[in-house]
Amino acid sequence: MGLVTLLTDFGTADYYVAAVRGTLLRLAPGARLVDLSHELPPGDVEGAAGLLAAAAPTFPRGTVHLAVVDPGVGGERRILVVEGGGHRFVAPDNGLLTHFLAPADDPPLVVSVKRHELFLPSPGATFHGRDRFAPVAAALLRGEEARGLGPPIGDPVRLPVEPPRREILDGGGTVLRGRVTRVDRFGNLVTDLPADWIPAGVRPIVEVAQHSARRWVTHYAELAPGEPGALVGSLGTVELSLREESLAARWAVDRGAAVRILLPD
Amino acid sequence: MGLVTLLTDFGTADYYVAAVRGTLLRLAPGARLVDLSHELPPGDVEGAAGLLAAAAPTFPRGTVHLAVVDPGVGGERRILVVEGGGHRFVAPDNGLLTHFLAPADDPPLVVSVKRHELFLPSPGATFHGRDRFAPVAAALLRGEEARGLGPPIGDPVRLPVEPPRREILDGGGTVLRGRVTRVDRFGNLVTDLPADWIPAGVRPIVEVAQHSARRWVTHYAELAPGEPGALVGSLGTVELSLREESLAARWAVDRGAAVRILLPD
Amino acid sequence: MGLVTLLTDFGTADYYVAAVRGTLLRLAPGARLVDLSHELPPGDVEGAAGLLAAAAPTFPRGTVHLAVVDPGVGGERRILVVEGGGHRFVAPDNGLLTHFLAPADDPPLVVSVKRHELFLPSPGATFHGRDRFAPVAAALLRGEEARGLGPPIGDPVRLPVEPPRREILDGGGTVLRGRVTRVDRFGNLVTDLPADWIPAGVRPIVEVAQHSARRWVTHYAELAPGEPGALVGSLGTVELSLREESLAARWAVDRGAAVRILLPD
Repeated sequence: MGLVTLLTDFGTADYYVAAVRGTLLRLAPGARLVDLSHELPPGDVEGAAGLLAAAAPTFPRGTVHLAVVDPGVGGERRILVVEGGGHRFVAPDNGLLTHFLAPADDPPLVVSVKRHELFLPSPGATFHGRDRFAPVAAALLRGEEARGLGPPIGDPVRLPVEPPRREILDGGGTVLRGRVTRVDRFGNLVTDLPADWIPAGVRPIVEVAQHSARRWVTHYAELAPGEPGALVGSLGTVELSLREESLAARWAVDRGAAVRILLPD
Repeated sequence: MGLVTLLTDFGTADYYVAAVRGTLLRLAPGARLVDLSHELPPGDVEGAAGLLAAAAPTFPRGTVHLAVVDPGVGGERRILVVEGGGHRFVAPDNGLLTHFLAPADDPPLVVSVKRHELFLPSPGATFHGRDRFAPVAAALLRGEEARGLGPPIGDPVRLPVEPPRREILDGGGTVLRGRVTRVDRFGNLVTDLPADWIPAGVRPIVEVAQHSARRWVTHYAELAPGEPGALVGSLGTVELSLREESLAARWAVDRGAAVRILLPD
Repeated sequence: MGLVTLLTDFGTADYYVAAVRGTLLRLAPGARLVDLSHELPPGDVEGAAGLLAAAAPTFPRGTVHLAVVDPGVGGERRILVVEGGGHRFVAPDNGLLTHFLAPADDPPLVVSVKRHELFLPSPGATFHGRDRFAPVAAALLRGEEARGLGPPIGDPVRLPVEPPRREILDGGGTVLRGRVTRVDRFGNLVTDLPADWIPAGVRPIVEVAQHSARRWVTHYAELAPGEPGALVGSLGTVELSLREESLAARWAVDRGAAVRILLPD
């Protein structure tokens, strides 16, 4: 029986995650459960999409990923099953799966789940994680095919992802423009600017809001205490860090902040 | 080898949960561990009882539920094994299992564990989760019968649960009286008032402390921002919510607050 | 396939723990993952060492323990595999495994991992948990021998552990000197003073900073509300507690605080 990962904004103090786990194990005995995270801020679909994009590819092919950050629970939003790259995803149609909808060369199968007989009878319409998403994931774990769960659709909701860009300046030089996509537990600022956009040997200044970092290092401990620095982060993008301190707190910068890098000619 | 769920107030920053897990896996190799929660406030037996009541029934029959919220650890309180409805529970005799002691039509087996040779030698008397509860759960996982662990008892500790009630008013109409039983991560106020006590088509005002909600919806996203509303929650009771905000914080209401619903004739 | 425990300071809100789990399951299909904790304060190598020392021995022999609290990630620090007492550990060479390096009668095998072909290609040098430690742990889980992963070394980094001590006083009597090694979720102060250093029947005053506890009990609930007390804790050392309150907060005492016990002649 297969692996199923869980990603929610439920926290772990309530009974919600426990009930999703119990339902999966009741409907798909032998399933192996693995948590991605339950600590997303309530309703943070964008954060969930990014976390899933970073974590899911590390799992073996065939894994089912159940992701429930679902502020529209109980409303008209569809329940999606997406199959692509050897992975299967079950999530609300609210953009959570944005990063898995993209590859034009190997388009994923996107299904709107219509097999209502799979759903559990619910007293209310507030907990589809337990009553709808978990049963759909359990069906996949029991061997059902994604294509058997509903019709393929062509219009899944996508988050408006603004890709980072390179602008040639009139006076010469290039400016890279991106943003902070994630602040991690250590207060590091992870950006969407691919590190390989910066030519070898060039060590440009990185600007975030009104702050800037001039030092480039290969790893955190190379920084002097109190000195902000840039390095190549774990997803291959530019990351900004402060040694043994939170740079996000020091600079009062959060997700979404604009990032600029000026490259000389 | 069977499933065992874990519910504690240990948090996850200390070594306590890890040591319970290790002990279970050492004494019952092959057991499959699933967390309910470890984030209960320290000593919150009532919260643990409610969480267990909501989560345990989602698990497959035969599951062992190990629940250790045990402010009386090391004292005279008994260690219980309760078997009922296809589930087995191991917990201190402090009311944690209250909601599983009730059904008069199918009374559970309640055993006070006396098999002291199962217990591990302890340096002190502060960690029965590792030294006594885990070994008892492991015995059940290895196939021991609940009835073989000690004598049945008839007087397990029960929490004083005040059930919600309906009062016919002299002047006509009915008032439903209950309380807030849970505040969840999203700040929703979950009550003990069964939603089916409210006649179809009636949309009564729900009063909590000095506040009230007049809007009824079927799901959270139907509410306008800033507007408190009532809906049927995930356990079939009346729940109060504020869109994308914590109603508990807005109203400064916590578990235990009185809830009143006035039904017209 | 074997058990692998995970101990990190990654928290559970980021994708980091999820990526370590996914990598382990991809490289060692069938591995059984168990969390020790991910809530260590960032960079708290000493806390990680203590938690691992308390938790690992509860697990069955053969377990692989993967511990990544690694402020020096990406730098010159070595990656260690330690094998001893039937357990195997994978961790950075920064003192995290200090407590497993000690036994002179049964010295562990300490290996500096050199099998670079096991490592995953990394975009940067910030996430060795995913790219180096997890693959090494997976190799052990797949059946590789620790001694095949690199040369044995004799100089692993050890934390400067100052053992508790007994001093005979000139004027008679003995003073035991130790420190607070851990503050737990309940605010209990766990010390390194072995409880069996205190003769039976003696109930000495325990002093911490400018505070003292005179009451000795066998379990927490024996204390009167508001009364600090001493008892034998879960690792066999002296522990200080306040009933249903945090003694650490009341006394404003943290890890490292000096503890003194005066024994009469």
